[in-house]
Amino acid sequence: MKEKYDILFGFHSVYEALKAGKRKFYTILISKNRSSDRTRKIEALARQRKIKIETVGPELLDRMTDFSNHQGMAANASFFPVKKAAEVVNLVQEKQSPCFILILENIEDPHNLGALIRTALCAGVDYILIPKDRSATPSSSVSRTSAGAMEHANIFYITNTASLLRSLKETGVWVSGLDAQGETSLFDADLTGNIALVIGGEHKGIRPLVKKECDFLLSIPNKGNINSLNASVAGGIAMYEALRQRA
Amino acid sequence: MKEKYDILFGFHSVYEALKAGKRKFYTILISKNRSSDRTRKIEALARQRKIKIETVGPELLDRMTDFSNHQGMAANASFFPVKKAAEVVNLVQEKQSPCFILILENIEDPHNLGALIRTALCAGVDYILIPKDRSATPSSSVSRTSAGAMEHANIFYITNTASLLRSLKETGVWVSGLDAQGETSLFDADLTGNIALVIGGEHKGIRPLVKKECDFLLSIPNKGNINSLNASVAGGIAMYEALRQRA
Repeated sequence: MKEKYDILFGFHSVYEALKAGKRKFYTILISKNRSSDRTRKIEALARQRKIKIETVGPELLDRMTDFSNHQGMAANASFFPVKKAAEVVNLVQEKQSPCFILILENIEDPHNLGALIRTALCAGVDYILIPKDRSATPSSSVSRTSAGAMEHANIFYITNTASLLRSLKETGVWVSGLDAQGETSLFDADLTGNIALVIGGEHKGIRPLVKKECDFLLSIPNKGNINSLNASVAGGIAMYEALRQRA
Repeated sequence: MKEKYDILFGFHSVYEALKAGKRKFYTILISKNRSSDRTRKIEALARQRKIKIETVGPELLDRMTDFSNHQGMAANASFFPVKKAAEVVNLVQEKQSPCFILILENIEDPHNLGALIRTALCAGVDYILIPKDRSATPSSSVSRTSAGAMEHANIFYITNTASLLRSLKETGVWVSGLDAQGETSLFDADLTGNIALVIGGEHKGIRPLVKKECDFLLSIPNKGNINSLNASVAGGIAMYEALRQRA
């Protein structure tokens, strides 16, 4: 029986996945007409980890990756490991330093999900939580759009966001939701200590049942009289305001 | 002789362009199978401004917009008006309140350009300057990816960035460049008063000749040990740090 596997592609995804060591690698495929510092970096890591490298025609990579921008590199690897969000409650209790949790509610666009995960890693987010059913998933495309950052992330699936927020609050986590109508300006909020930041979907924002569980609803000032920021930029601004305050 | 015109498409672009009034409209085309609050909003504005509306088949819109996501709406309009950056030096001198200038050096991806322009409007940027030859241009696609924000922006073309920065500095503008290797942390910088913020291209950042003219090179802290933020997120974080300080 053939084992099911994920197809990683593009330099950053394959390289960061090798470095992060969270996936099992079966084969690495490199296009026969590509030889560069990048392919050599991947070959060196693969040799260290005794992973088979195959040199293939570019058309095979095109087909494998559904004509994505694979940069002449792909890999068959196990799926990205995602844990259950209930674990995060324990992790918060065990952790010595204040923790920073990011909850991505219903982000539908894989590009936004990738960009938000990439920013989260740079901003020092500890745990990234996404709903199991109503969100883009941590697929190889998201890994690619995160420029490989996803491979280093601690990602958890939530089954019931409202109930998880209640558990987090009982553990001493302050929950803030980003909301265009929020009464507190992002820049007036206290984002130190144990915090969870909830970012809503591109179209409908945070669902009412989840919004009800937020301690604060934070809005980003808008000088423009035009429609709001895009989800990944808004998320980046909020995460970095938290980083600024926590430094 | 046929006049040359731009083809705007998508609700936000057409609607915001009508509201902003910076373009001359020739015809507005609405797909015959679309009738919604959105088309009615556009029809009402078009009637006020005595612009001809044509009901057309969706396949005509597909062809006109090169199969872009036009949402059943397009318009023939004059090109987006762009002035010369030299004017900005006069504008700074005349302006009573401190001004906030954004210089987008070599942004190649129209999606990044659109996102940066949209964020700039929300963050209270007064003037957006882009190099005439080495950048994506304020096209209808950029208007679309800016969710129409571009239609309200004051955009200027630079012919020589280094020389323009010298003129701005002589007028009392402090110039900061965003640079991953910058010695000053973004959060330690003073971004009040008359400022220009330079954001470099996706691949090579700010060119050395331009970097030399910056008073400060600012880096965004990165906790991740992975590659840096994407250009539109990094720009958003820097513009909003400026807004926070200027509030």
